[in-house]
Amino acid sequence: MTLKNDLILRAARGEKTERTPVWLMRQAGRVLPEYREVRSKMGGFKELVETPEFACEVTIQPVDILGVDAAIIFSDILVIPEAMGLPYQMIEAKGPWFEKTVKTTEDIQKLRVAEANDLKYVMEALQLTKKELNGRVPLIGFAGAPWTIFAYMIEGSGSKTFSKAKKFLYTQPALAHQLLQKITDSTINYLKGQVIAGADMLQLFDSWAGVLSPEQYSEFALHYISQICSALKEVPLTVFAKDAHFARRAMGQLNCNTIGLDWTMDIVESRELIGNSKTLQGNMDPCLLYADYTTIKSETIKMLKTFGPQRHIANLGHGLYPDIEKDKVKCFVDTIKEFRF
Amino acid sequence: MTLKNDLILRAARGEKTERTPVWLMRQAGRVLPEYREVRSKMGGFKELVETPEFACEVTIQPVDILGVDAAIIFSDILVIPEAMGLPYQMIEAKGPWFEKTVKTTEDIQKLRVAEANDLKYVMEALQLTKKELNGRVPLIGFAGAPWTIFAYMIEGSGSKTFSKAKKFLYTQPALAHQLLQKITDSTINYLKGQVIAGADMLQLFDSWAGVLSPEQYSEFALHYISQICSALKEVPLTVFAKDAHFARRAMGQLNCNTIGLDWTMDIVESRELIGNSKTLQGNMDPCLLYADYTTIKSETIKMLKTFGPQRHIANLGHGLYPDIEKDKVKCFVDTIKEFRF
Repeated sequence: MTLKNDLILRAARGEKTERTPVWLMRQAGRVLPEYREVRSKMGGFKELVETPEFACEVTIQPVDILGVDAAIIFSDILVIPEAMGLPYQMIEAKGPWFEKTVKTTEDIQKLRVAEANDLKYVMEALQLTKKELNGRVPLIGFAGAPWTIFAYMIEGSGSKTFSKAKKFLYTQPALAHQLLQKITDSTINYLKGQVIAGADMLQLFDSWAGVLSPEQYSEFALHYISQICSALKEVPLTVFAKDAHFARRAMGQLNCNTIGLDWTMDIVESRELIGNSKTLQGNMDPCLLYADYTTIKSETIKMLKTFGPQRHIANLGHGLYPDIEKDKVKCFVDTIKEFRF
Repeated sequence: MTLKNDLILRAARGEKTERTPVWLMRQAGRVLPEYREVRSKMGGFKELVETPEFACEVTIQPVDILGVDAAIIFSDILVIPEAMGLPYQMIEAKGPWFEKTVKTTEDIQKLRVAEANDLKYVMEALQLTKKELNGRVPLIGFAGAPWTIFAYMIEGSGSKTFSKAKKFLYTQPALAHQLLQKITDSTINYLKGQVIAGADMLQLFDSWAGVLSPEQYSEFALHYISQICSALKEVPLTVFAKDAHFARRAMGQLNCNTIGLDWTMDIVESRELIGNSKTLQGNMDPCLLYADYTTIKSETIKMLKTFGPQRHIANLGHGLYPDIEKDKVKCFVDTIKEFRF
């Protein structure tokens, strides 16, 4: 099926676009009253993720309501540990929690390399959404980057420092590499399955990149991201490593199309470090959307001008916060869609 | 009184030192069994902070036990909001909590500019410690940087995003500046008092620097840090803005002696950005101290060599984590003290 709007794919490939395309991390989520309504009818976050009809419905909502240039499948990065044999719960207002965590060689040996088929509900959600989107905009698939998945599997929950996961890197580096390789192999299978199921573009989220030193990030994170980039050449791939300011130069060498920036990363400096062979994505501070409309518009236009007319996919520098008003989000999206260089 | 060991002061001023001096953020704290014992006899963290005899005792412990080259007064950055009229509680395992937060112009008008005398218990703790140290090592005084203090006063507690505090910057910038100025004036009074009470060196902690964009950091944080630097010329001053990688070039222009680095900041790159007129402090990943002794030694020596023989004060890139073994901390300190270029 031909896409009616392929701006994001063209921007990712470095082809000319008439205007800057835009989507938002967490666009399918609590920021939309329509999402909250669907959610209130369901048991909880995981039930939503695991029910293809509902995942499809909330994935398409921001395309209808906000007019973004891509849909991103409603899912969670922690489906991978679960498919490998480490189930988790999503606890309201607290976040993810694993009853069992990985501690020993045996724990790692017991984990399986996940296949796309182990995550049938995600594949079905993608197929259904692809069909329902009917070519309006591209569909983005995603996964957590191996280090971030590893961090949750060792730590067992969110953490300010992820010191247990980091302790594991310092005390059992060989074992850490074993687990990271298993996660990487699972992620490659999973993302390949997503492409077959209909994903037009992929994103890797390295949410906890910022707790590692540059050296450890290179050894325990980038090494595996690089394997994933090389294994997935079917559709454009974006790598977003939050807070990994120190890795920008190295990320310019990855075999992927797009690098995501957070709002602490200066745009001009990032372009210099990353080079001209990549599309950049981002990077507005989500808190700008608390400001008045005039400020949102002027800051958004300033951001667009700083990135320049090509090789840019507009986005925030992190996910939308749940208490941001829908109309402010729409103002951000509309400003980008209306702007011409 | 002449100091027997003034290595840190000489390093801060850019004078020659025979070896690299070392101290550790949170060196007076739970990492020491001796601290935990004193603490168990007291009601809680705040009682310890507010009782000069005990604050003095735990301040000196790491000088005796770890052999560090400086003592840092045992206190808390949140004594300033309290002295301004906004009391807080320290809740075990949760962190600080303010019953009232700042929301309106009236809330800001009601706050007073703190004087050193409002924090008599800190001044007494400094005087007592200075006397007890008897010139063995310099005594470091400290305060939170205005943005970090502001963030707690608006947010009311710790936060992953500090989105309430940031929302305030975006929606009420003029009011934010009023409050920041009041905090800055209080901090200057407080630090001047600390110098009079015996502090040989000062450090500003901007713990939440990393949640702001480079532009907002410049407007709402550096502007006030700069005022503090210019007002305090009596003793060497260190600015440690955690995660403010984007501000390193600007920090090179501050009227202070030393810039603290966290472990995500590449040492060579930071030296280039900051220039040669500042001493650098840091920046080992605290999690290295979970590793075996051989690794701790080799990584510590690598760090020392990368910083070079002059204008470096060795430290971690953040505070010690409470579950690190005392002997590992001692290994880090001893490695630095034994190393010669």
